[in-house]
Amino acid sequence: MKHNLQHTISLLARTPAALDLLLRDLPEVWILRNEGQNTWTAFDVVGHLIHGELTDWMPRTRMVLQFGETRAFEPFDRLGHVRESQGRSMIQLLEQFARLRAENLCELRALNLGPQDLETRGRHPTLGAVTLAELLASWVVHDLTHLHQISRIMAHQYREAVGPWSRYLGVLQCAGHSSSS
Amino acid sequence: MKHNLQHTISLLARTPAALDLLLRDLPEVWILRNEGQNTWTAFDVVGHLIHGELTDWMPRTRMVLQFGETRAFEPFDRLGHVRESQGRSMIQLLEQFARLRAENLCELRALNLGPQDLETRGRHPTLGAVTLAELLASWVVHDLTHLHQISRIMAHQYREAVGPWSRYLGVLQCAGHSSSS
Repeated sequence: MKHNLQHTISLLARTPAALDLLLRDLPEVWILRNEGQNTWTAFDVVGHLIHGELTDWMPRTRMVLQFGETRAFEPFDRLGHVRESQGRSMIQLLEQFARLRAENLCELRALNLGPQDLETRGRHPTLGAVTLAELLASWVVHDLTHLHQISRIMAHQYREAVGPWSRYLGVLQCAGHSSSS
Repeated sequence: MKHNLQHTISLLARTPAALDLLLRDLPEVWILRNEGQNTWTAFDVVGHLIHGELTDWMPRTRMVLQFGETRAFEPFDRLGHVRESQGRSMIQLLEQFARLRAENLCELRALNLGPQDLETRGRHPTLGAVTLAELLASWVVHDLTHLHQISRIMAHQYREAVGPWSRYLGVLQCAGHSSSS
């Protein structure tokens, strides 16, 4: 399936509210535990999504439109979420994510991108030439990667509790860990 | 982490609304496409969750409490969702899932299960002896397995569209497919 701007926006617009409903007021065992050393909690993931709204998707969209392939994107800081989330509550993070996403989608819609704009190329610091359509499609799949990760992190907390059922529960077999950029 | 009934209920209670927010009124490309031959769409998954509410989790809970290990559970029909979802819309399925889940959690709360009840053993047709706590923990992880699956099915639709970013997006590397029972 090719990238479609309306399909992209329809999904991006839903993520913050769906995560809010899933995570707000959940007991801390579900949101402050990780999958072991050097892995993330659901709280970390929401901080990472905020960091992406601030430094990744729309800033890179602007760069593609302004500079094309002549200037490479800033590398994305995969630990940038630590700054975003220090000393804050899950509810604060969820609300900030929703606000930033709404602002970014407002800006994206206002750009009124046509098919030719979407084929414009920018330069990724490690991937090389990428199109604006690929950047926007990746924004969607990045959301889904982290929804996928959050469901896996939470399931991990009951890995022992499910007893023999673990063999039937696909999420406990997942090794598709993120290394998003 | 051990099973905890309040933690279980807090998560089970959120799934229908989170799925509703994610899937209601989404373009059909996100909800009616699958991952290839003999795989499920997001629509199929919601039908499967309905089938679980009707035939799996609470009926098995009742069986454990009534018969202990003396009677094995009915095997779960992994294609039962086809009956549940035929000729219906995604919105109808989401609303039925929410209604059934609310009724089931109402019944679960009313059972007022204590620690000893949760250690009661039942008999699974293939797994053998299982405790009520393991059954209830599996209900949670089954929800998370299918949230994980839905995010993977939707991401799959943009597998080509993301171009070179695919190597960074964990959900596209996931092979943790469900074989829930």
